[in-house]
Amino acid sequence: MIPRYSRPDMVAIWSPETKFRIWYEIEAHACDAQAELGVIPKENAEAVWKAKDVQFDVARIDEIEAVTKHDVIAFLTHLAEHVGSDQARFVHQGMTSSDVLDTTLNIQLVRAADLLLAGMDRVLTALKTRAFEHKDTVRIGRSHGIHAEPTTMGLTFARFYAEMARGRSRLVAAREEIRTGAISGAVGTFANIDPYVEDYVCKQLGLEPEPVSTQVIPRDRHAMFFATLGVIASSIENIAIEIRHMQRTEVLEAEEFFSPGQKGSSAMPHKRNPVLTENLTGLARLVRMSVIPAMENVALWHERDISHSSVERAIGPDTTITLDFALHRLAGVVEKLVIYPDNMLKNMNKFKGLVMSQRVLLALTQAGVSREDSYRLVQRNAMKVWEQGADFKTELLADPEVTAALSPAEIEEKFDLGYHTKHVDTIFRRVFGA
Amino acid sequence: MIPRYSRPDMVAIWSPETKFRIWYEIEAHACDAQAELGVIPKENAEAVWKAKDVQFDVARIDEIEAVTKHDVIAFLTHLAEHVGSDQARFVHQGMTSSDVLDTTLNIQLVRAADLLLAGMDRVLTALKTRAFEHKDTVRIGRSHGIHAEPTTMGLTFARFYAEMARGRSRLVAAREEIRTGAISGAVGTFANIDPYVEDYVCKQLGLEPEPVSTQVIPRDRHAMFFATLGVIASSIENIAIEIRHMQRTEVLEAEEFFSPGQKGSSAMPHKRNPVLTENLTGLARLVRMSVIPAMENVALWHERDISHSSVERAIGPDTTITLDFALHRLAGVVEKLVIYPDNMLKNMNKFKGLVMSQRVLLALTQAGVSREDSYRLVQRNAMKVWEQGADFKTELLADPEVTAALSPAEIEEKFDLGYHTKHVDTIFRRVFGA
Amino acid sequence: MIPRYSRPDMVAIWSPETKFRIWYEIEAHACDAQAELGVIPKENAEAVWKAKDVQFDVARIDEIEAVTKHDVIAFLTHLAEHVGSDQARFVHQGMTSSDVLDTTLNIQLVRAADLLLAGMDRVLTALKTRAFEHKDTVRIGRSHGIHAEPTTMGLTFARFYAEMARGRSRLVAAREEIRTGAISGAVGTFANIDPYVEDYVCKQLGLEPEPVSTQVIPRDRHAMFFATLGVIASSIENIAIEIRHMQRTEVLEAEEFFSPGQKGSSAMPHKRNPVLTENLTGLARLVRMSVIPAMENVALWHERDISHSSVERAIGPDTTITLDFALHRLAGVVEKLVIYPDNMLKNMNKFKGLVMSQRVLLALTQAGVSREDSYRLVQRNAMKVWEQGADFKTELLADPEVTAALSPAEIEEKFDLGYHTKHVDTIFRRVFGA
Amino acid sequence: MIPRYSRPDMVAIWSPETKFRIWYEIEAHACDAQAELGVIPKENAEAVWKAKDVQFDVARIDEIEAVTKHDVIAFLTHLAEHVGSDQARFVHQGMTSSDVLDTTLNIQLVRAADLLLAGMDRVLTALKTRAFEHKDTVRIGRSHGIHAEPTTMGLTFARFYAEMARGRSRLVAAREEIRTGAISGAVGTFANIDPYVEDYVCKQLGLEPEPVSTQVIPRDRHAMFFATLGVIASSIENIAIEIRHMQRTEVLEAEEFFSPGQKGSSAMPHKRNPVLTENLTGLARLVRMSVIPAMENVALWHERDISHSSVERAIGPDTTITLDFALHRLAGVVEKLVIYPDNMLKNMNKFKGLVMSQRVLLALTQAGVSREDSYRLVQRNAMKVWEQGADFKTELLADPEVTAALSPAEIEEKFDLGYHTKHVDTIFRRVFGA
Repeated sequence: MIPRYSRPDMVAIWSPETKFRIWYEIEAHACDAQAELGVIPKENAEAVWKAKDVQFDVARIDEIEAVTKHDVIAFLTHLAEHVGSDQARFVHQGMTSSDVLDTTLNIQLVRAADLLLAGMDRVLTALKTRAFEHKDTVRIGRSHGIHAEPTTMGLTFARFYAEMARGRSRLVAAREEIRTGAISGAVGTFANIDPYVEDYVCKQLGLEPEPVSTQVIPRDRHAMFFATLGVIASSIENIAIEIRHMQRTEVLEAEEFFSPGQKGSSAMPHKRNPVLTENLTGLARLVRMSVIPAMENVALWHERDISHSSVERAIGPDTTITLDFALHRLAGVVEKLVIYPDNMLKNMNKFKGLVMSQRVLLALTQAGVSREDSYRLVQRNAMKVWEQGADFKTELLADPEVTAALSPAEIEEKFDLGYHTKHVDTIFRRVFGA
Repeated sequence: MIPRYSRPDMVAIWSPETKFRIWYEIEAHACDAQAELGVIPKENAEAVWKAKDVQFDVARIDEIEAVTKHDVIAFLTHLAEHVGSDQARFVHQGMTSSDVLDTTLNIQLVRAADLLLAGMDRVLTALKTRAFEHKDTVRIGRSHGIHAEPTTMGLTFARFYAEMARGRSRLVAAREEIRTGAISGAVGTFANIDPYVEDYVCKQLGLEPEPVSTQVIPRDRHAMFFATLGVIASSIENIAIEIRHMQRTEVLEAEEFFSPGQKGSSAMPHKRNPVLTENLTGLARLVRMSVIPAMENVALWHERDISHSSVERAIGPDTTITLDFALHRLAGVVEKLVIYPDNMLKNMNKFKGLVMSQRVLLALTQAGVSREDSYRLVQRNAMKVWEQGADFKTELLADPEVTAALSPAEIEEKFDLGYHTKHVDTIFRRVFGA
Repeated sequence: MIPRYSRPDMVAIWSPETKFRIWYEIEAHACDAQAELGVIPKENAEAVWKAKDVQFDVARIDEIEAVTKHDVIAFLTHLAEHVGSDQARFVHQGMTSSDVLDTTLNIQLVRAADLLLAGMDRVLTALKTRAFEHKDTVRIGRSHGIHAEPTTMGLTFARFYAEMARGRSRLVAAREEIRTGAISGAVGTFANIDPYVEDYVCKQLGLEPEPVSTQVIPRDRHAMFFATLGVIASSIENIAIEIRHMQRTEVLEAEEFFSPGQKGSSAMPHKRNPVLTENLTGLARLVRMSVIPAMENVALWHERDISHSSVERAIGPDTTITLDFALHRLAGVVEKLVIYPDNMLKNMNKFKGLVMSQRVLLALTQAGVSREDSYRLVQRNAMKVWEQGADFKTELLADPEVTAALSPAEIEEKFDLGYHTKHVDTIFRRVFGA
Repeated sequence: MIPRYSRPDMVAIWSPETKFRIWYEIEAHACDAQAELGVIPKENAEAVWKAKDVQFDVARIDEIEAVTKHDVIAFLTHLAEHVGSDQARFVHQGMTSSDVLDTTLNIQLVRAADLLLAGMDRVLTALKTRAFEHKDTVRIGRSHGIHAEPTTMGLTFARFYAEMARGRSRLVAAREEIRTGAISGAVGTFANIDPYVEDYVCKQLGLEPEPVSTQVIPRDRHAMFFATLGVIASSIENIAIEIRHMQRTEVLEAEEFFSPGQKGSSAMPHKRNPVLTENLTGLARLVRMSVIPAMENVALWHERDISHSSVERAIGPDTTITLDFALHRLAGVVEKLVIYPDNMLKNMNKFKGLVMSQRVLLALTQAGVSREDSYRLVQRNAMKVWEQGADFKTELLADPEVTAALSPAEIEEKFDLGYHTKHVDTIFRRVFGA
């Protein structure tokens, strides 16, 4: 976790304080359930809630762990210091450490998912706003980095919106994947604890009971979760790359907002660099790198080995914190992106009229010229624009083979930009609804 | 694609013949829609269906492509050879190559998903059958590779079933992700083709229209698809690793079926190696390796670049073919797995009674001994079993501190295996339903 | 392996014919060594060489393998059909299948490395030629996609040359990593075969004996090999991305060669797309995807498990074939790249004189203006160029605070391009030698 | 970076204090060189060294950066607070931020490599010691997890030693890869700074000048560095997996050292889990996950984009810290590994004599029995051991077809363990030298 790429809310989810708080709640709720079942005395269960408002002492727990080399035992020992060791004696009864650890991890991931969803919502709002703002801002569409046909800046935002909205749905599903808890004992048989305890605790904490666990909650759930984050990060990269392209000197159709105090370069004061989106490109790589380890974590030996643990200690916080930060950074970039419609037009006209070649090709075909001949005619005039800087329309009007098939008015009409934007509303309706 | 790890049905989906057939159907349906709109003459649309029963000549198309260096143009030229070049002149009108290519890829992926779902169903059936067959076959549960507490072989199969069932749901979702088509023209604006054509063609082919495309269908869909395959492959690895462990000489609780003619080793004729599950472990790595490239494919430049194409030409077939093969190999392994319940009991008793230590610990605690003392008492007797091969129950019965808290009958009762299997039915109900 | 991305020489290395030929040579040489040691009769060793010119029948071997389910046994059976089953009886004695398989794989990888080195040499030659050709072709250097200071096209080629030359050295080292053979028996103890056989066979085949093997050659060697290919592929991507940027419509400083017959787009005849370098970008992803599986292959269980095998059957051929193809495609692109020096100058002057701001900043500082003031002065004039299209030099000459520190001649001198290219020769000397 | 998996020495390399110290040294040495060249006054260069013993104030620098949003400018501003802003005015002249940042990163990586080499040396020493200690400790070799033929525990250690020694050589090469510095200005042309400064600074700091840089040092170097760490991590995993297998209850040939205070499980006091090697398995995944992002960092746009930076801020420290920790954890595990030679013998004899089947097979062949018949004879007796728990030797002695070919003494001789260990010295000589 790199502070410069962190937001406090997400960091807090992964703090030891939060972790111990969740541990406490699981243990306390489990005692309630055990008392209800008559397995432990009611007063002992109640006593545990005495620590309800305690902020657990992380340093003290670490101190105990240094001796026991076991984190849950260290916590329970510390808890007993608050509740009284006699009254605390039934805490954790019939449970295994992983019951606590795995249920906690999933609670943290659910909370992380909630923050990420909020981040995605901010991105979605920004994209939608900018999409409608630039619904009709014409801009050249490019395939292979080469001018193709006109499109609008609004469509670009709309497709990022649709992609992010898909990402959001995937994240909702991924959140559901890890919204389970398990209190099933050493190998998942409930030998020493009634399934009711699991049901009860999960209900209190907003989780579903894991239908069949071993000592641990199965890691295919977490693999799916991190894989989903990897896909979302790739969509962030997609938007970031588009903005980086738009900002490059020769294109300059948009720029990241440049605050007054900011210095672009220690050496070149005129520079305004798309550093936020470049940064997002890197952050996407960081999020994605958790995917394979999360998948390698699935095949634990028998009822569990602990190889997954160190991986999750790293990627649990790091990946969610990085993605959370990236979403908000992206939202900020989109919200404040400075857009230059004039430059969009200027760029589109770099090769005068050439982007309309497809329309002319079609018109020739429909006027009865063979596909091959149409292609040849268009290409020969296009080449003059390309190589000599000629104006496409002028050349077409001067080409007798072309004018034999199309009248000047028909040719003229092919250069109307409205032709290319006529379905923008249809697409917006598909993306944003009626 | 490695023939030895391929099944013909999946290979067929990726054959050039299948591809050209889908191209043809897209073009023919698009002509119908265009004719309906009055954009092209009805007779030209009808003429295209003359090729309905043609098996397209792959070699001929390759020959044409060698000249044009463009696959779709090569195909259209070949199609014209069948339909007549005059009648074929409106084919592909207003469309761009990617309209055909991307829609085709998604159709292939949907079909691949259907085959994979069938493979998963076979695995699920096998796992369910074996789960019920061995619902009560007691077996030691292991954490960290170390004996923990008893469980049953049925529970092991049940958890693999639950995991695969989750994988199936994920695959259904992933299939839905890529069940879209696009016929939206050069940069996705429908400038030269009415959205109705896209609607019509998609409907004919069982797809949803991509709400907003560029020249291509957005690649976050494919990233999600391959990420999902990676998770499923990791679950296959999980099962494979379990079986490999069970088959190792010292454990021998199960073995892959060994056909009479098979030779395990050129040098050691007695060997029966878990080569199928080892192979599955490797195949899982191969499936997983497509995940990152699929994610790297998301950030295409502007309205598209073609970097994704070579990646998909490889991972499209390779990953689905490998996973399909792996699912059926896994199903076969599970169906025919030879299980040795006697060895399971023998292994469990390697350290006589030691696996019951947790129960004794709990019993001591509940009998009023402090947690720390209980732990100490259990551990000191356990160590005798571990180090001197003693019998745990005998030691406990001879330990006055233990017998001060628990009567011999109470101690005896702790060694009842039924204690550990009492909730198996509950878990089975959770997994398989009532 | 995708035929369209394959070159025959590399494909041949991975053909079954080549594989069986290498198997044969290993077995035959091993027989010679065994005969020399007196372990088997000389005539039996000699008899094996009767098959020296045999092209082994792959279909027949497959047929036998269908029964035995063991490839080496199938091959030996077939060999006996040529040599005579009595005379062939000592073939493979004391050896284990992996002795043959692993030594063969390494021979194939060494040969693959040799082809890759040849491919890199072709790339290096092309880069060097173009570097010297454009040593002094001035071009704007860009950081963050934004104009920075002038550099030369030759320097761009020179740095790609230096990077590829590093790649070449790494590949030489990687080749050395896998240039080992092992004939050490079932678990690597030479129990049934004298180490002399290994020494002898390795010497005949240009390999080093693996110092300590198990049943297999350790896979860290292969992991290093594939990791190295992944780095080289990333360097290919680096060059490809640069060319794609240069070719984009707004930049157009270079173009992939566009052959007369070639059609850029079915819809837009004027388009010339950088499809080769886009393809290389995708191929780089494909090469890289082998790295993690190759690393996952390292931790085989005990003296070996066979999980690595399926992985290597795929990535062995696929990765080397793809990289080989990519190197030659890249070489072709570089050799024929069409470069537009005029456009380079035009682009550089897009913001008139602004790229010289760093020089002016330094000059002001050296003339005694404080760093902060210098920065402010440069920035305020730069902003006029940026925002109003002014000419930087003109603005500076008109700014009294600037002219108070620098004379017109001094300002003038800051706009000399030679200033930026004065060390090109030094750098070339570093890269290409005196 | 996870504190629990960190060692202070490596953490210190990545502290802001270390970073600023290196920045300072680069700037100060650069001033010396500039003064030598006569570019800046000697007294200004000397003045910079006034800060020689300053511990830079990280909080203050952060404060300045919050305004400037540029870290190097923030540092230089702070440096001026120590040196005097007038005297500091020539600091950084002609340099670009990346000159400082990239050279610093490489110095940190070189230092990290040095610590890693020390860690590897500790592992190598431990492996060598244990190898010689158990050179002749016989143990069954296993392929596919199935008993094969005897080997020795010493050979296992020896092969891990050889693998780690290869890793060490690779790390030495990787260290050399990133042992370069660059002070070449905004786009690498040395326009504003003489190459002598780069030469001088690199020499002072133990680096080689980067032959051709852009604004940055080329990232193929770093990709190679992290790829190498990934391979080493995979070798750690290899050793960890072996130990985990040895410790599993049914095998128990070795155990991680279990300190007196340690508790294996909150529930099962008898458990001794191989948690350190399981942890190493997870750490290996964490190290490996940096490889792909490091490769994705290679293709920076033009003369640089900053996408690599966030990646390196994470993987620079995290990967080296994790690997450093893992190496020392591994060394500790190997040094203190408790080995059970008796259990090794017991395991080997689980299937009485069966592991000698290969020898018998060979003996039969050499006695003139055909390969097929020999195989059949061995297999039929082996199956009795396997299925009925018979003793292999006894069965062979009772099989008339066997005794027709081999005398009882000859059969007897095949069961001599010395046969399998006779070349151990040869292998040790290969690995450890004479």
